[in-house]
Amino acid sequence: MKCKKCGGKASVNMRQHRMALCKEHFIEWIPEQTERFIKKYNMFTREEKVLVAVSGGKDSLALWDILTRLGYKADGLYLGLGIDGGVNYSDESHRLTAEFAEKNGLTLHTVNIEKEYGYSIPVLSDISYRGHGKPCSVCGLAKRHEMNRIARDLGYDVLATGHNLDDEAAVLFGNTLQWSSDYLLRQRPVLPEKDGLARKVKPLCRFYEREMTAYSIARGIEYIYDECPFADGATQVFYKETLNQLENTRPGIKLTFYLRFLDARQSGNLFIEKDAVQAHIHPCAKCGQPTSAPDLCSFCRMIEKANTTTG
Amino acid sequence: MKCKKCGGKASVNMRQHRMALCKEHFIEWIPEQTERFIKKYNMFTREEKVLVAVSGGKDSLALWDILTRLGYKADGLYLGLGIDGGVNYSDESHRLTAEFAEKNGLTLHTVNIEKEYGYSIPVLSDISYRGHGKPCSVCGLAKRHEMNRIARDLGYDVLATGHNLDDEAAVLFGNTLQWSSDYLLRQRPVLPEKDGLARKVKPLCRFYEREMTAYSIARGIEYIYDECPFADGATQVFYKETLNQLENTRPGIKLTFYLRFLDARQSGNLFIEKDAVQAHIHPCAKCGQPTSAPDLCSFCRMIEKANTTTG
Repeated sequence: MKCKKCGGKASVNMRQHRMALCKEHFIEWIPEQTERFIKKYNMFTREEKVLVAVSGGKDSLALWDILTRLGYKADGLYLGLGIDGGVNYSDESHRLTAEFAEKNGLTLHTVNIEKEYGYSIPVLSDISYRGHGKPCSVCGLAKRHEMNRIARDLGYDVLATGHNLDDEAAVLFGNTLQWSSDYLLRQRPVLPEKDGLARKVKPLCRFYEREMTAYSIARGIEYIYDECPFADGATQVFYKETLNQLENTRPGIKLTFYLRFLDARQSGNLFIEKDAVQAHIHPCAKCGQPTSAPDLCSFCRMIEKANTTTG
Repeated sequence: MKCKKCGGKASVNMRQHRMALCKEHFIEWIPEQTERFIKKYNMFTREEKVLVAVSGGKDSLALWDILTRLGYKADGLYLGLGIDGGVNYSDESHRLTAEFAEKNGLTLHTVNIEKEYGYSIPVLSDISYRGHGKPCSVCGLAKRHEMNRIARDLGYDVLATGHNLDDEAAVLFGNTLQWSSDYLLRQRPVLPEKDGLARKVKPLCRFYEREMTAYSIARGIEYIYDECPFADGATQVFYKETLNQLENTRPGIKLTFYLRFLDARQSGNLFIEKDAVQAHIHPCAKCGQPTSAPDLCSFCRMIEKANTTTG
C-alpha cells in the first residue's frame, strides 16, 4: 500500500477514508485534521487558555502533543486517583505524564485525590457502595468535579479531554440501545460554558482509537499501555467490541454512526433540542460549584458521607 | 426448567421475560399477548376486516393462526413473486399457504405478479438494475403496491404483516446506525390509514423470532423452512446476527432497544414528531394509488419502464 501524499510505503491504512499514509505524512495529517475539527466545532482559539486532562494514556498525551504542535496554549492536569491494580497503575501513569511534560517544557498541574480529600478512588467507591460494584461511577464523578474546580481556580477557558471516536461511538451506542433521551441529547464534541463550568471539548472525537495508537507510537510518546484495571468487563468495552465487529465488515460504519448522529442533531429533523431544565442551579455550599442538589453537590456529598462513615 | 403456569416441564424459555412455559401454556400465552398488543397499539377491532399478508413462512402463518383463534375476521393474501432458487421457493410457499387456508377453512386471495404484470420479481429486478444487485428493493416495492391495491379493491380495513421483534429491531438498528430521520420517524407498530392507503399493523412486533418458530412448531403449522434465496448476505441478516450476539450476552437487550424506542417517541422527550410532507399527494394516473411522483407511482413507472425496455 502506498502513501497517498508521497507515493512512498504507507504505514497507516485508514479504510474508512480509503486512504493510506506513510509515517511522516500521517503525523502531519493528524494535527491538520485536529485543527479542522477545532475550527469546525468552534472549540477554542489560540488566545484561549486550554487545560488538557491527561491520564498518561495514548489519547490524552497525543492530544497534548497535537495542541502544542499546533501552537495552542495548552497546560496539563493530571489527577492522581490512587488506582493500584498490581502494576501501580496511577504511579506509572503519573510518571509518564510528568516525563512527557518535562521533555516538552510544558506546565503540568497534579492533583492527588487522596491527599486532597483523604480517600483514593477505590477506597471512596468501597465506602460509597459498601464494597459492591466497580469504582467507575465514583471515578467519573470525582474527575468531573476536580477538572471543573481546577479549571475555575486557575482561570482556564476550556477543558479538553482525549476521547476518541471509539469512546464516543461506544457511549452513543450504549445510550442508543437504551434510548436514554437525557444522555443522547447531551452528547456532543463541545459542551458550552454554563453556570460557571468551563467549556468542555473533545478535539479527537473523529479519530479512531487505532489512529491515536499509531500517532503516539510514531511520535515516540511513552504512554501507559495497560487499560485501567477496572475497565475489564465494563459495558463500555463490550460496546466497543461490538462496534469493532461491525466495523470489520463495514469499514467506516463507526464514523458514519457518530457523524450522522451529529448531523441529525444539527439538522433539527430528528431530535428535539431542549434546554436542560435549569431549575434551582446554585453554588454548592462547600465547593461553590454549580449544582441542582439542595445543599451540597454530589461530589461533596459523597466525601461528607465517607467522612461520617469512617470517622 | 419448570413451566411458570403449571409447574410441568417447560419447553420454551424466554430469558428476556425470565419465564419458561410448557408447550400447552406457551400456545395459550402467545395469543393472549397478541391480543394485549392489538389493544395496546389500537391495531383493529373484531368488527374490522383484516387482510393478512401471508408468505408461507412461520411468522405470517402463525399470525393468521393467532388472529383466527382470537376470533378476528382475517383473510389471507398470498403474493406470487416468481422466486425459484432451486427449491421452487415461490411454488412451495404458495402450496403451504393454500394448504393452511384449506385446513382451517379460511379465505385466501392469491395474486401472481408475473401473471398480473408480465414479469416475475427477479426478472423485473434484472430489467430495472440491468442484472446488478439484489431484487429486494423491487420486491418490497411490488409487495407494498399489491397489498395496498388488494386491500383497497376488496374493501379491507387493515393490512397485517407478520414482522416479529427480530425484524423490527434489525430495521431499527440499521436506521439508527445511519440515523436516517425519515425511516426512524416512520417505524411503528401501526401506520394509520392515510391518503386512501389501508392501515398497516404488525401484531407480532414484540415476539422474538424463536418464539414464532416455537409457536408454529407447537401448533403443527407446516411452513417453508428456507429463507428467501436472496436473503443470504443481505444487510438485514447481518444486523440480526449482531443483535443476536448482543442478546446472548445481555438477554432482553433486543426487546428493550425496540420498546424504549417506542417509549421515547411517545414521550416526546427525544424525537420531533413531524407530519410527513404531504405536498402533491395525488392518485397515480395508472393504478389510482396515492403517490407524490408527478404522474405515475414508482411501481407503475417500473412496469412501464420494463415494458419499454423489453418491448
